Amino acid sequence: MRERYVIIPAGGSGRRMGGDIPKQMQELRGVPVLKRTLDLFLNLPFEVHVVIPINDSIKGMWTDYCRKHNVYLKYVLVTGGMTRFHSVRKALRYVPDGVSVAVHDAVRPLAGPEWTAGLYEAAEEHPAVVPVLPVTDSMRTVSPDGVSSPVDRSAYRYVQTPQVFHSEVLRKAYGSVAYSPAFTDDASVVESSGVPLYLCEGDRYNIKLTTPEDMALARALIDSGIVRTTL
Amino acid sequence: MRERYVIIPAGGSGRRMGGDIPKQMQELRGVPVLKRTLDLFLNLPFEVHVVIPINDSIKGMWTDYCRKHNVYLKYVLVTGGMTRFHSVRKALRYVPDGVSVAVHDAVRPLAGPEWTAGLYEAAEEHPAVVPVLPVTDSMRTVSPDGVSSPVDRSAYRYVQTPQVFHSEVLRKAYGSVAYSPAFTDDASVVESSGVPLYLCEGDRYNIKLTTPEDMALARALIDSGIVRTTL
Repeated sequence: MRERYVIIPAGGSGRRMGGDIPKQMQELRGVPVLKRTLDLFLNLPFEVHVVIPINDSIKGMWTDYCRKHNVYLKYVLVTGGMTRFHSVRKALRYVPDGVSVAVHDAVRPLAGPEWTAGLYEAAEEHPAVVPVLPVTDSMRTVSPDGVSSPVDRSAYRYVQTPQVFHSEVLRKAYGSVAYSPAFTDDASVVESSGVPLYLCEGDRYNIKLTTPEDMALARALIDSGIVRTTL
Repeated sequence: MRERYVIIPAGGSGRRMGGDIPKQMQELRGVPVLKRTLDLFLNLPFEVHVVIPINDSIKGMWTDYCRKHNVYLKYVLVTGGMTRFHSVRKALRYVPDGVSVAVHDAVRPLAGPEWTAGLYEAAEEHPAVVPVLPVTDSMRTVSPDGVSSPVDRSAYRYVQTPQVFHSEVLRKAYGSVAYSPAFTDDASVVESSGVPLYLCEGDRYNIKLTTPEDMALARALIDSGIVRTTL
């Protein structure tokens, strides 16, 4: 079995949530979102080494929290880059070759532990494991002048994280491609380096928390017991 | 103010939910999904005339329910067509010109009443009101041979229902275009007849219930009081 790592880019200072607290540090039923995301990996039934690239703007807030709650020595903290792309590339310096490394959004704390473990399992065989879900709503494209056109949704998939890669493959991809704003996830980076992706089934409850409505949805999922944060 | 109507195509016999009960007839906290969707419109702060095109396969089940629960004379039941397109076209025979008519998915019972009322208000000014939400997950297209490519999600919007139209505009659109499987919603039909769409903000909790996971999510939203089914 490959050793297992995860990079959780926590650098963004996303303020779409409203308020002064970046979304990854907002509390969800008493626990900051980033702490919940960290715990997901620390509580898997196998050891996962955690690397968190974080920006100075929230580093103080996070380390204060960790000090108060004794979250010590459980992860490596790295100073993040200008963008997610640059943060992951920096974090990869702390990940050796020959292991499986997941990259996971800090604001997806609700991923199922069993499901997440399954992605690492799939990465024993496949160098690039990417969870996707079918699109059930209709979709339209909107052009800058506001004109919209319908889209055949059956050809589309939502892409989630964690995406799990052989570390040497991810490192090679990040070393061989130039940054582009089109890289909204690591699958795009790896694919543009010529490695085929293995698409597997996503987790419906693994919601990306970007708005106050998403946070309310997350609270409802936790309160109802639908999502469990440990196995 | 224009008189207000809604068409709720309930014809599909979608079995993705599993089990023998079509998804629109499955119970959500004791009430069939279709009944919840009907109640959304019957409980708005203004009168809405309801037309439900329904297929024979579930007509018996629905009318049995209505008989038992005294849901009489509150809507017009129409025999549905082969597809959603054909069902809406048939239902339009029961909608006069000069009114506002919404078309709403039977399996979206959680739309907020205030938000829904706002769509009718917008239709006082605009002939085609279409609620959309930004796409927050990354997306990929998947070709039939399984190869996938990244997509610039910023150009995309999820499209929800209810979509509200001036009835004469919707009728003209359905009369002037030939059926195409690309018509997954009424906005596409209206747009292909040359009428510009007015895109407004969607409702995050207005989830389309297509899988058991969606049903669990809906239960959590109801139990938590996040969605209210009456004003």
